[in-house]
Amino acid sequence: MTSSPGASPTTSTGSPAERAATLDRADPLARFREEFVPSEDVVAYLDGNSLGRPTRASAERLARFATEHWGARLIRGWDESWYGLPLTVGDRIGATVLGAAPGQTFVGDSTTVILYKLVRAALDARPDRTEIVVDTGNFPTDRFVLQGIAAERGATLRWLSPEPDAGVTPAQVAGVVGPGTALVVLSHVAYRSGHLADADVITRVAHDAGALVLWDLCHSAGAVPVELDAWGVDLAAGCTYKYLNGGPGSPAFGYVRAGLQATMTQPIQGWMGSDAPFEMGPAYAPHEGVRRFLSGTPAVVGMLAMQDMLDLLAEAGIDAVRAKSVRLTGFALDLVDELLVPLGVRVASPRDPARRGSHVTIDHAAFEQVLRRLWAQGVVPDFRRPDGLRLGLSPLSTSFTEVQVGVEAIRTALLDEPASA
Amino acid sequence: MTSSPGASPTTSTGSPAERAATLDRADPLARFREEFVPSEDVVAYLDGNSLGRPTRASAERLARFATEHWGARLIRGWDESWYGLPLTVGDRIGATVLGAAPGQTFVGDSTTVILYKLVRAALDARPDRTEIVVDTGNFPTDRFVLQGIAAERGATLRWLSPEPDAGVTPAQVAGVVGPGTALVVLSHVAYRSGHLADADVITRVAHDAGALVLWDLCHSAGAVPVELDAWGVDLAAGCTYKYLNGGPGSPAFGYVRAGLQATMTQPIQGWMGSDAPFEMGPAYAPHEGVRRFLSGTPAVVGMLAMQDMLDLLAEAGIDAVRAKSVRLTGFALDLVDELLVPLGVRVASPRDPARRGSHVTIDHAAFEQVLRRLWAQGVVPDFRRPDGLRLGLSPLSTSFTEVQVGVEAIRTALLDEPASA
Repeated sequence: MTSSPGASPTTSTGSPAERAATLDRADPLARFREEFVPSEDVVAYLDGNSLGRPTRASAERLARFATEHWGARLIRGWDESWYGLPLTVGDRIGATVLGAAPGQTFVGDSTTVILYKLVRAALDARPDRTEIVVDTGNFPTDRFVLQGIAAERGATLRWLSPEPDAGVTPAQVAGVVGPGTALVVLSHVAYRSGHLADADVITRVAHDAGALVLWDLCHSAGAVPVELDAWGVDLAAGCTYKYLNGGPGSPAFGYVRAGLQATMTQPIQGWMGSDAPFEMGPAYAPHEGVRRFLSGTPAVVGMLAMQDMLDLLAEAGIDAVRAKSVRLTGFALDLVDELLVPLGVRVASPRDPARRGSHVTIDHAAFEQVLRRLWAQGVVPDFRRPDGLRLGLSPLSTSFTEVQVGVEAIRTALLDEPASA
Repeated sequence: MTSSPGASPTTSTGSPAERAATLDRADPLARFREEFVPSEDVVAYLDGNSLGRPTRASAERLARFATEHWGARLIRGWDESWYGLPLTVGDRIGATVLGAAPGQTFVGDSTTVILYKLVRAALDARPDRTEIVVDTGNFPTDRFVLQGIAAERGATLRWLSPEPDAGVTPAQVAGVVGPGTALVVLSHVAYRSGHLADADVITRVAHDAGALVLWDLCHSAGAVPVELDAWGVDLAAGCTYKYLNGGPGSPAFGYVRAGLQATMTQPIQGWMGSDAPFEMGPAYAPHEGVRRFLSGTPAVVGMLAMQDMLDLLAEAGIDAVRAKSVRLTGFALDLVDELLVPLGVRVASPRDPARRGSHVTIDHAAFEQVLRRLWAQGVVPDFRRPDGLRLGLSPLSTSFTEVQVGVEAIRTALLDEPASA
């Protein structure tokens, strides 16, 4: 049996299934798994980092919404509760998973649109600086948004290449920031490799150069502790359909540090970001607070489900969530080392749990071929080019047994695949 | 009894309630009212132009979504159907209510964000022109978006003042467009007055000057026939939560004429608008078709309900919908003339049904005071400053009796209001 730095004594004896069962029995968060809608044909859901499962409470909330809220309250619902949702849900996300005091987090638009607004706002706030630091491993939409803005504004992108074993490091950032740097845009957890950046130190490095920092929290919010206020982060954005279980395409969140809000404006001036939306006045004046970063009518239906996941995360506590995440990814790596590495699979994610998010990426040339077979049998990771399978482990809904079933199914599929023989 | 140009013989005898009952019995679309979720405490819903009611089918669809789709298919749902929704639902909106051939309509983002993207795209497509024509009666978000873009790009806004009795006219537009005009941005139906613009002629006037046209269809899509292709319209955007009954904050639609797409790009470059979203490549290349106007992950949950209303609209046919809309607003004006004008109420909407959308706005200094009382008793219009009540009549869900109950309740409230005595 192959040993690995992530292995722990409790996982080192017995068959994979026996060890998984032992870990599940010892899991202090095991009861939360009952809070999610079961999926009959799915035996191992390993893509919580792409789309979190619905909670049972969300299924009920969606079932009641049209009759008890939308249909019953009709337009009165806006005054009674919906109008405030972007900020009240934002504050709950801030308090529960971002380490953000109230009045700094909002929900609205897609991650892409929020990134666009915040990057534009940051450039306007640093008018004498023309460089943006970003890494080549960042998520496509982040890179694409920056490429568009750079072309439009005559800004220069300074590209970092994540180190294969460490991701983007503080030293790399220190080497590239300077008096011309307006903004540093990085992902807290890298979408492909799962590297967890040292956001605290990198934020300080950027600030020492007079630059602003924007963290993409898509792959950390709800799974990895974030301390935006304590770290002094300026701007952040992230998905709510991954570890916040908001449902497919649920609206994203944005964060703007309180001290920056009064002097920052964003380019998409809509009625919901204005000082007095229902005055219907002749000229736009931005709201004094974080509401100025909103644009159009809030996506009320899209904000329903995430509220239930926030309830569960608040009850479990983000530290307990993180502890289980580390155990899940550690167990996944143990099994990969034992069952898949002998078949030529390579581990693309960090071995050090302190530098790892809540997903593990493994590479093999045959993975694109085996994905459909896995999906058809109810083992559901996702595929990322050129040859990666991502195992996204959502701490409140994923069991150790799912990890074991998933890794064993990948082994079986690889053994059956002609290309990998 | 006061007579009005909108009166018809069938509404001219008997009490208001008797006439309403007669109209309801003769209504060929009456059966569609059963397709909507009932609202127990609402006796007259007169705000379908702000938030359409949920259909029963949508209530069921939302109730099933988390368990049968999101929870059952999980990430596989993207490949199976969700990824295509912005264009498939867009095409259905185009075919059902916009007069648009496939491949030109998309769903995504808020109306505000879509307006921003399309106005920016239009300015880039007319680089030698710096003027945008807009009217002071346009919806705030339209004006605010344009003010922001004008300031950012050094463009000039040429403001038209809608004529009190006719709204924005072709002659007004002809008087202001010229070789410097890049874009004309107007609302097809004015949000406050309900004036219906002569979109066909105004589009030609703008084109004759070499300008592009963007129509805001928020208050017409689903209630007033629109013929984007036949009129040669370049760009359009509109809400889906009004007469398309998509639910509070459901994502908006955008339209870009096929012939313009290849040469137009929008500024918010996201993965979902790129040529190959899942290649995760290094550089953004816009999709060859209308998908290039998308940015972030599609709002799947927000696109559910509108699909059911599109089914009903397709079944009824937009011409029958329009015919009922004209009868509803005509009956409302008859009753306003008879019951409210004697109390000092003024009609702010057009008398000519050919120039009227599907809502009627009436003004009185006491209306802000009476609104809460009306809402508390289940009579639900909305209020628009400085002193307007809007009666928004959604043809498939509103009965003539609701109109009568509503207008009589307004009369009672006005008679009880000290300020109006």
